[in-house]
Amino acid sequence: MQAEFLQAESASGSPSLAAALRQRRQRLATLISVPVVLWSGQSPSRNFPANSYPFRASSHFLYFAGLNLPKAAIALQGSHLTLFWDEPTPAEVLWHGPGPTRSQLAEQIGADDARPLADLEQYCAGAATIAVQDSTTRQQQEKLLGRSLVAPKLAQEPDRALVGAIAQVRLCHDDLALAEMRRAAQVTRRAHAAGRAATATATTEAEVRAAMEQVILAADMTPAYSSIVTVHGEVLHNCHYGHRLEPGDLLLADVGAETPLGWAADMTRTWPVSGQFSPTQCDIYDIVQAAHDRCIEAIAPGVEYREIHLLAARVLAEGLVSLGILCGAPEELVEQDAHALFFPHGVGHLLGLDVHDMEDLGDLAGYEPGRTRSDRFGLCYLRLDRPLRPGMVVTVEPGFYQIPALLQDPEKRDRYSALVNWDRLAGFADVRGIRIEDDVLVTATGVEVLTE
Amino acid sequence: MQAEFLQAESASGSPSLAAALRQRRQRLATLISVPVVLWSGQSPSRNFPANSYPFRASSHFLYFAGLNLPKAAIALQGSHLTLFWDEPTPAEVLWHGPGPTRSQLAEQIGADDARPLADLEQYCAGAATIAVQDSTTRQQQEKLLGRSLVAPKLAQEPDRALVGAIAQVRLCHDDLALAEMRRAAQVTRRAHAAGRAATATATTEAEVRAAMEQVILAADMTPAYSSIVTVHGEVLHNCHYGHRLEPGDLLLADVGAETPLGWAADMTRTWPVSGQFSPTQCDIYDIVQAAHDRCIEAIAPGVEYREIHLLAARVLAEGLVSLGILCGAPEELVEQDAHALFFPHGVGHLLGLDVHDMEDLGDLAGYEPGRTRSDRFGLCYLRLDRPLRPGMVVTVEPGFYQIPALLQDPEKRDRYSALVNWDRLAGFADVRGIRIEDDVLVTATGVEVLTE
Ligand SMILES: [Mn+2]
Ligand SMILES: [Mn+2]
Repeated sequence: MQAEFLQAESASGSPSLAAALRQRRQRLATLISVPVVLWSGQSPSRNFPANSYPFRASSHFLYFAGLNLPKAAIALQGSHLTLFWDEPTPAEVLWHGPGPTRSQLAEQIGADDARPLADLEQYCAGAATIAVQDSTTRQQQEKLLGRSLVAPKLAQEPDRALVGAIAQVRLCHDDLALAEMRRAAQVTRRAHAAGRAATATATTEAEVRAAMEQVILAADMTPAYSSIVTVHGEVLHNCHYGHRLEPGDLLLADVGAETPLGWAADMTRTWPVSGQFSPTQCDIYDIVQAAHDRCIEAIAPGVEYREIHLLAARVLAEGLVSLGILCGAPEELVEQDAHALFFPHGVGHLLGLDVHDMEDLGDLAGYEPGRTRSDRFGLCYLRLDRPLRPGMVVTVEPGFYQIPALLQDPEKRDRYSALVNWDRLAGFADVRGIRIEDDVLVTATGVEVLTE
Repeated sequence: MQAEFLQAESASGSPSLAAALRQRRQRLATLISVPVVLWSGQSPSRNFPANSYPFRASSHFLYFAGLNLPKAAIALQGSHLTLFWDEPTPAEVLWHGPGPTRSQLAEQIGADDARPLADLEQYCAGAATIAVQDSTTRQQQEKLLGRSLVAPKLAQEPDRALVGAIAQVRLCHDDLALAEMRRAAQVTRRAHAAGRAATATATTEAEVRAAMEQVILAADMTPAYSSIVTVHGEVLHNCHYGHRLEPGDLLLADVGAETPLGWAADMTRTWPVSGQFSPTQCDIYDIVQAAHDRCIEAIAPGVEYREIHLLAARVLAEGLVSLGILCGAPEELVEQDAHALFFPHGVGHLLGLDVHDMEDLGDLAGYEPGRTRSDRFGLCYLRLDRPLRPGMVVTVEPGFYQIPALLQDPEKRDRYSALVNWDRLAGFADVRGIRIEDDVLVTATGVEVLTE
């Protein structure tokens, strides 16, 4: 190992890149009047300082600067952009090789000016910003701005205005973003195909994960989040790959690629290890598939995403009634949140530079101004509650899980005692977790499924 | 993506694990009299708080606790171990699944006591510690200890005594460590074989990297550091994979696996993209190989590692003289650091839980007490200057590079004008970078090459 820190990774420069970035900056300028400074951040250390995690610039910086460049910042005065970055010293060039100059980077992204970091301080007076994730850079932000920063979702003025403006600008995607997301989705589809193929001979979850991430790395992309590849899909946040694959298992794979400029895909498939569903697995899979398909059919501009979530809940409830697992009228079951016993998460979320796009802004991006999270068991996990608009990309990811912590919870068993046929459910023990997730672009006339 | 944070990853419990860990704690207890508290740390965020980098516990915690467990701590009073950890709340179990209890983990690692984190404060009075890498946990350390912490290499008492004691304990490896390192090395060898095989059909560096890391991930291991897989081996810290492979290129791959308990391998191979070295590539490769082999032959208990470095330099100088690239007596060339024009790094370093083992302690681990770094161009990068002892694992990684920033440096060209035949060198333009690296265990009688 010789690596010490990552070098500037430059976007593939093109006139259209600079033009697209400039357009983003112009849109922001119409929404905010104070100067803005955004930092890219730097890699956190793993086990010792020189062995850092792979660098990933702040999404807000990436959105307007289009460079995965550590230790950089941009200042926006109106739509006038100044890039701040220190070129490598001769000693750094010795180890990291030659790279683009500051002015080459500036030209590539259509910056109006380019300066060393030492000049940044004079641009910080009265500027709004968003706190980055790494604390080393956050301390620099606080020092230069002369004030302390809080998590963006708690920001006060002037930062709160910036958070609101950015949430608005990033909500609907431009052509540059969509081109990147289509590339991420395409590689992600190939990764899923490779995972499915590898299952035939794999003996552990780790081998399937490896086959999937190989496709992503070979495309010079990176996983957008910690892959979930597990025969225990009922553990929703499962990032371990140690289980052996048994013939009767379902394998749930939630794996997505991210392009070098940071745009994500997010896709889940569930398939039988043996290549063949059992009858019970098939029954439940068909229900989840139906919920997935019906939701995508229902997506269109103006539709409330919350209604998509409730539609998924209703289709799942209908299916479970038809199988005799739930008892009652589907509409009423959903009103009582009975679906959430088996589907205790939201039907999806915004997708963009972040796999949960702009989640660092709390619900300021995902929730229409004035709306807040519901207290209801069946709605409280919903990450997105807005009317859909062309250019939004959302995930659609209904699922069915048998989570012991939920289904064995005495309070839940009591509350839903009349609505669940527990004996009937026991017959479906070989269905621990199923999810089907796609990335859906809302268009003027309907949808484009990026991951299909 | 559903992942929010990583769950306790438990060691494969066995009586021998607990016994081996207890022995490590006993050794530490003989070297330090104050109480010790070590924290495991937590994952830093990537682009938003819930999307974190994969968790990797502090190496010092891992060494004595044997658990890759986030948000945990251990207190050592003599060899008496208390494990501090909060079991997941019911809400966390819902998302992350059931896991071992605190007392199960405690038993697994042979802890004498196990308590919630709230009890940790009362163990902190007068305790020595080592600052972890993530700043969130570092702030908790400072709060509980009631004092500020600096980088371990700058530590004052009582931490300085702990740093010295840990450097001593971790320097020579026990059987548990060696078993882990052999496993890491074995997977690493397979990764290199896969990379070499993939080169036949690959068109980019990224594809070869992907083939190598697939082997590591499939073994449920993780890369120990950012892989270097490049046709520009002369860029020593090259973590980009975007170049196309051309038939005349050499591909340099520096890739190593890390086991779930954190033990690393570090291995470099260089092979021709076409499968066939050119005559000039073959000439230089043979010289690097000779330096590598001679160094490994010379390793034995009592030998100064610095002498291994100088041996590599001499063999390289001899070879370059024989090719007409350097002019003069090899011994004198090395004294004048002429070898460092082409080999500007140390011949290797300690290997263990960290790929540069204990580099967070600065040179306190790598340098024998009383020794400091040389100012010499040909020695200043040496990370290890100690007499070798049985149980040490060191890398041996001589190389040859044509680094423009060095070879075009006017000062260097002037200083070495009479010693380099620049015209002759020009004939070797197709040799940009070669390195051959293996992991070598010093035994009582000689060596065991782990990566061979
Ligand atoms: Mn090395
Ligand atoms: Mn998702």
